[in-house]
Amino acid sequence: MRAATIRDGEVLVEEHPDPAPGAGEVLVSVAAAGINGADMLQRRGRYPAPPGSPQDIPGLELAGTVEALGAGATRFSPGDRVMGIVGGGGQGELAVVHERQLMPVPDSVAFPDAGGLPEVFTTAHDAVFTRAGLRPGERLLVHGAAGGVGTAAVQLGHLLGAHVTATVRNGDAWDAVAGLGADELLEPQGFEEHGPFDVILELVGAPNLGANVKALETEGRIVVIGVGAGAKAELNLAALMAKRARIMASTLRARPLEQKAATARAMEKEVLPWFARGDLRVPVAETFALDDVAAAYDHFAAGGKLGKIILQP
Amino acid sequence: MRAATIRDGEVLVEEHPDPAPGAGEVLVSVAAAGINGADMLQRRGRYPAPPGSPQDIPGLELAGTVEALGAGATRFSPGDRVMGIVGGGGQGELAVVHERQLMPVPDSVAFPDAGGLPEVFTTAHDAVFTRAGLRPGERLLVHGAAGGVGTAAVQLGHLLGAHVTATVRNGDAWDAVAGLGADELLEPQGFEEHGPFDVILELVGAPNLGANVKALETEGRIVVIGVGAGAKAELNLAALMAKRARIMASTLRARPLEQKAATARAMEKEVLPWFARGDLRVPVAETFALDDVAAAYDHFAAGGKLGKIILQP
Repeated sequence: MRAATIRDGEVLVEEHPDPAPGAGEVLVSVAAAGINGADMLQRRGRYPAPPGSPQDIPGLELAGTVEALGAGATRFSPGDRVMGIVGGGGQGELAVVHERQLMPVPDSVAFPDAGGLPEVFTTAHDAVFTRAGLRPGERLLVHGAAGGVGTAAVQLGHLLGAHVTATVRNGDAWDAVAGLGADELLEPQGFEEHGPFDVILELVGAPNLGANVKALETEGRIVVIGVGAGAKAELNLAALMAKRARIMASTLRARPLEQKAATARAMEKEVLPWFARGDLRVPVAETFALDDVAAAYDHFAAGGKLGKIILQP
Repeated sequence: MRAATIRDGEVLVEEHPDPAPGAGEVLVSVAAAGINGADMLQRRGRYPAPPGSPQDIPGLELAGTVEALGAGATRFSPGDRVMGIVGGGGQGELAVVHERQLMPVPDSVAFPDAGGLPEVFTTAHDAVFTRAGLRPGERLLVHGAAGGVGTAAVQLGHLLGAHVTATVRNGDAWDAVAGLGADELLEPQGFEEHGPFDVILELVGAPNLGANVKALETEGRIVVIGVGAGAKAELNLAALMAKRARIMASTLRARPLEQKAATARAMEKEVLPWFARGDLRVPVAETFALDDVAAAYDHFAAGGKLGKIILQP
């Protein structure tokens, strides 16, 4: 099979042996695979794939059709449309995925979109719903709301019945983010004047930490899942105590199979029904053929677009 | 009635009007009232009592006998032995407390001890069990384990079936803390070499923050409830993400009635049965008559003693 391949800081297309599904695994013919920030890091030789995943084929998510089943795999049948998060190797013509990590693709979701669904919606759902425990009527602040996870978090918070405030650096994206359900759009500077917030989703990094603590409601939660703008900042523990607040930090990629499977089950229960009803959508900025993977990566790295960039192997 | 009273940075005994129980409240004849760090702060004019509590009578906890019931109070009868956390006013001959904040005193617990039980055990239980969710088999690290909350946390962790590591600055207290159930005693310096810990109870402050994050197990929790040694420190959010860790901070005193009542119910369910069976004890360093309140405070402020200092009004 042909697959995107990382070689010496470049991404290109190479021929690889067809993977074979092991016990409990499913062979997927990949129709669409989203590009994520971690792929950029991996191209630069950082953020290596976890053990057990293909080391040189990037791609953290995929959607496609079941091609064959490994021993004991029973959740899906050949021809089923599936999608899921993988430790790596999503951006090839074929991929093997443990059946517990896969989700069915709702009929209402087309393939290019499904390839960009798992990573951002699972990340946003896990951070905002599962970890931070957002409740209806609470105020959610999403930093970096025009990014992939941000657009998912804004939609999820809105559908749950929270009041959603979004910070977006690029004013051109304000209308689009408002269209996803944000009640209030803010510049990143000075957001703390608009609190207090019950849950703050931090996708930007440490520079926001002090103001995040100031902007928190009593019993508030800060969930940190992105630190692109910096990782270290001063924390005032006394201020955190006075608010009985929590700072939670997380990543999805390093989790063991049982935890990744648990996030997939939570998605099936809490998020896919909203997709099936047409209440959620994956913003797609552009799609690329597998042969154009280098251009697709450059396009992603350039930023500035709202929505996912998706490869179609 | 006579009560300890804060006047211009001093604590003395003054005459006050007898308090009368309002709706849902209980009038308690106080037999024993523990002294806590917050009393020291209040004597120095900091950490004022929350609204609705006596402003000039210190005391965050008490034990005694029910003297009279306010309208609609039904949980206790006159003569019952009760104890509880109060927003202030514990260190007088009489106190009114909402019945939902009170707990019955187990038969096996004597009065001087009961006066020092609520604050430290409720604080430790809420932080380590309710907030951090300590589980059997996990590793618990207690910083400042020779202090009041520390001695409670060590005992609770041990009884739950956790492996308990304690840092204690004063080597003279090591044997006593080991006798409470600590499996491992450490100097405060270099504790991070002895991890990873699932739960870290921080009673000392910000200087430990960096090493706490280093010493944390994946999915670990740091609960900060004391910052006497400093409140501000640098936090590495990337390290916190890699461990999918949480930092929780809390205080009891500022909570609304419903939350304080919830902690009392949790104590009745999870902790008092251990007291009734004789498995837990309140370490008492010394008891003082109400008239000796100034000496009792000075004794507390001098530190160095393991166990509670308790007034007997």
